[in-house]
Amino acid sequence: MKADFANLFTLSLLGVLSAAAQLELRPEAARGEPRVGDLSGLVGMVGPQLRGSLSISFERGLAIEIVRRMRGEVTTAPDEALAETVGEITGMVAAGARRMLGGKGYEFDMASPAVVSGPGHHIRHRATGARILLSFDSDYGRVTLEICVE
Amino acid sequence: MKADFANLFTLSLLGVLSAAAQLELRPEAARGEPRVGDLSGLVGMVGPQLRGSLSISFERGLAIEIVRRMRGEVTTAPDEALAETVGEITGMVAAGARRMLGGKGYEFDMASPAVVSGPGHHIRHRATGARILLSFDSDYGRVTLEICVE
Repeated sequence: MKADFANLFTLSLLGVLSAAAQLELRPEAARGEPRVGDLSGLVGMVGPQLRGSLSISFERGLAIEIVRRMRGEVTTAPDEALAETVGEITGMVAAGARRMLGGKGYEFDMASPAVVSGPGHHIRHRATGARILLSFDSDYGRVTLEICVE
Repeated sequence: MKADFANLFTLSLLGVLSAAAQLELRPEAARGEPRVGDLSGLVGMVGPQLRGSLSISFERGLAIEIVRRMRGEVTTAPDEALAETVGEITGMVAAGARRMLGGKGYEFDMASPAVVSGPGHHIRHRATGARILLSFDSDYGRVTLEICVE
């Protein structure tokens, strides 16, 4: 299960950022420390056999570049645009992984996403089961993904 | 629906903090700006007729006082203890409200909670339906609760 989740969330994240923003991410070894990001999307997952949460944390420079590529120049309300885009990307990644995981027998539904902004915030997931950390680098900054499922 | 959610989440929050930490909260007028907190618990909600997310944001001084009352003096790993307690309180508030709302015909299941730490972070919920903001003061700091349901 852990491998299926890691692989399909990775595929979904790389696919969404490539399709939506023409951005290439380079997988890197995830470190064990708590995830730190400047903007994070969070989604809860609830299914008959599982319950968990997903977070995707972006460094600010990468989030700005994604907004620029998806919407053109950011002129007004940049914080709103950043948060909205991070929420949108998080929802797309979760929906893509959910479709692929459904094909493998993992059924779950998703809550609506929330977006956290604040330089260097930490996110701790409280699910007690499998914990998956994925980390990616790009020319504009890092993105880390954490999934906890019980 | 909005009034039911506001009332029962308020009852649940006041009840949990009174029972678990003998703390009295004073409701105050919620202001319209985005919720800012130092420690926040987040839970996704998924049901047949609704989908949403809940956040409860604590000022650090209040979170420390809750930990002190629930666990005695905090000596080691205060950040871990704060995050764990905020996650626990968030789960208890959501579970209490869920039970009461179930009695009124609003059925939903909850994802596992996540906890955000970081001084002055903002949380934006992306659900497009009803948005409920509740704000409470105490002798140790403020707690704000936001529920978005669609």
